[in-house]
Amino acid sequence: MTLKVSKRGAISPFIVMDVMRAANARQVAGHDVLHMEVGQPSTSAPAQVLARAREALDQELLGYTDAFGVPALKTRIVAHYQKAYGVSLDPARIAVTTGSSGGFLLAFLSAFDAGDRVALVSPGYPAYRNILTALDIEVVDILTGPETDYQPTPALLDQIEGRLDGLIIASPSNPTGTMIDRDGLAALAVYCRARGVRVVSDEIYHGITFEEPAHTFGEFETECFIVNSFSKYYSMTGWRLGWLVFPESLSRSVECLAQNLFISAPTLSQIAAVAAFDCQDELDANVVRYKANRDVLLAELPKAGFDRLSHAQGAFYVYADVAHLTDDSQVFCQKILAETGVAVTPGVDFDPQRGHSAIRFSFAGSTADMIEAARRLKVFHQSV
Amino acid sequence: MTLKVSKRGAISPFIVMDVMRAANARQVAGHDVLHMEVGQPSTSAPAQVLARAREALDQELLGYTDAFGVPALKTRIVAHYQKAYGVSLDPARIAVTTGSSGGFLLAFLSAFDAGDRVALVSPGYPAYRNILTALDIEVVDILTGPETDYQPTPALLDQIEGRLDGLIIASPSNPTGTMIDRDGLAALAVYCRARGVRVVSDEIYHGITFEEPAHTFGEFETECFIVNSFSKYYSMTGWRLGWLVFPESLSRSVECLAQNLFISAPTLSQIAAVAAFDCQDELDANVVRYKANRDVLLAELPKAGFDRLSHAQGAFYVYADVAHLTDDSQVFCQKILAETGVAVTPGVDFDPQRGHSAIRFSFAGSTADMIEAARRLKVFHQSV
Repeated sequence: MTLKVSKRGAISPFIVMDVMRAANARQVAGHDVLHMEVGQPSTSAPAQVLARAREALDQELLGYTDAFGVPALKTRIVAHYQKAYGVSLDPARIAVTTGSSGGFLLAFLSAFDAGDRVALVSPGYPAYRNILTALDIEVVDILTGPETDYQPTPALLDQIEGRLDGLIIASPSNPTGTMIDRDGLAALAVYCRARGVRVVSDEIYHGITFEEPAHTFGEFETECFIVNSFSKYYSMTGWRLGWLVFPESLSRSVECLAQNLFISAPTLSQIAAVAAFDCQDELDANVVRYKANRDVLLAELPKAGFDRLSHAQGAFYVYADVAHLTDDSQVFCQKILAETGVAVTPGVDFDPQRGHSAIRFSFAGSTADMIEAARRLKVFHQSV
Repeated sequence: MTLKVSKRGAISPFIVMDVMRAANARQVAGHDVLHMEVGQPSTSAPAQVLARAREALDQELLGYTDAFGVPALKTRIVAHYQKAYGVSLDPARIAVTTGSSGGFLLAFLSAFDAGDRVALVSPGYPAYRNILTALDIEVVDILTGPETDYQPTPALLDQIEGRLDGLIIASPSNPTGTMIDRDGLAALAVYCRARGVRVVSDEIYHGITFEEPAHTFGEFETECFIVNSFSKYYSMTGWRLGWLVFPESLSRSVECLAQNLFISAPTLSQIAAVAAFDCQDELDANVVRYKANRDVLLAELPKAGFDRLSHAQGAFYVYADVAHLTDDSQVFCQKILAETGVAVTPGVDFDPQRGHSAIRFSFAGSTADMIEAARRLKVFHQSV
């Protein structure tokens, strides 16, 4: 007899992974590649984090921890909210998670049942959509453009037909780098509270901002989820560590789910990450570089024909509308890679409906690479 | 308006966590505790794993890896199947996962839709039931007892009413330490294939066996999932690393789910775990200790009134039917802890229906602790 296959697995792959594979193949074949496809820092974890990890390897047994993480790390996270946002947070509302991925699973499962309707913006981070789909939660698309900086607004939410149970926001956003300012967040909080819409705020790019610092949604609402991560600002991707701030009312749900789904986050990462909060100088130097990279791209890309760019105020991405250049961004990105060695990501990863005419540039690399990439793209533009 | 709360979060906690909390509180209050509640090795990762981790901290960037893990680790896993079981495994069927927890999520989501029916035995590992429930998959209980060594058989499966989409097996089992022998596995494979039942085989206690080595379900079936982990035999709990062998036909599903739900498993753990396969002497010394511990308990516990014990052939657990001693195992365990300092886990964690008259002893600790615990339990028995 035939064995069961789930419809749940029929979600989209990350197309960026295919781009990375093609870029790596090109490199292995002896050609050079300028990596503007990868969404991760090119730096290692900060020196003090590495030092603390070495100590822990020598001194600790590294068994399971509490499901919500080691107390010392939660204490530092609480202090971080006080210092960065002026928000007093009860440590009992914090779960240390296995990357932001673990936080999303806990938030989605504790808040939403199968058939519930959760809104998110396109273009947006593809895993939101794919995790929700795998959990049988209905995704409600909000198509956004440059007129709202690719961010949701109460006016856009008002256009949604039917009931809404949840909303995912991300500021700064992947793939656009755009942000929701203080007033915008406050307006969304008022709108969602009045209508019983549970907000999940993705704040994993906080700290990487170039104009104004980011506000946490926790300034405006306690009955929300805040997802954060040590992967981006703290430059610890492979350590698979993040945290979730959850509503006190869902505490027992989140704890039971965390125990059963994860047991606990990686112990060495947890112990080492305590030191991450003492590394601001080293980490801010990365942000200075990201800003320099952004400035290069915003100045130079328009000369290469990419003149419809998102207002990248944070993260390390800029999103380009390339409708005047192609209607097949996957083929277009393959052509750019083949002719210039610059690897970029097609928009279809972020916007299934309209991404065929958009691409994402990541500027997490070195400034020299950005300058060289811009130079090559200008040559490419003149040749087409 | 009221915000959404999911029914999915209404799953059971791990009661063992509550026992650990009580045991730790007793310790903090200045009393001693003999830990027989914890399901993890008392040893650290093997020396060569620690050495490889130190090297990697110095030399590697520790970014994301492929969703399915670093090739060097998959190569070693393939070699392990050849050596331990004589099974040739295609590395394309292996996903390195974030503990066995990550493997279960990938297996359940790629094989089963909401409403599908998956059978498992009681007593059994509580997270199976709880993860399935959180994913809206229906749990079909198979009540087992000593007459089948607490393991499923075709005859027991035949008694299930209604359709069956999946079956979870575990040999050696948590909480009983019992195993399914070669013929038993072969019979289950034949039965399940004929009826279209997808098998998920939990093999995380392989390597910790005291009589016969364990057989992998992969010897009998390719269209199954095999979940394994570096936590138990390899003594790397807090490293959060495991692996999943999946059916080739579900490869794309499992890959998309892994990318979206996890990105990748902890990088340092992956690199270090390559060395785990060179540490057999150190790891087998742990198994010698577990066997000595088991032998102490099987000889001494009956003298303490615990004379209805599971035939623990592997893992580091023995399950005791205590129906003649109590009908409230939670209160009974609290009493044992208070009067003797021995922490044990009530059966309700493993068997919601009948666990009120059972307890689990974990013998992952030192042999001296086992001898002392048995002595105190005999005194306790004489006092009641």
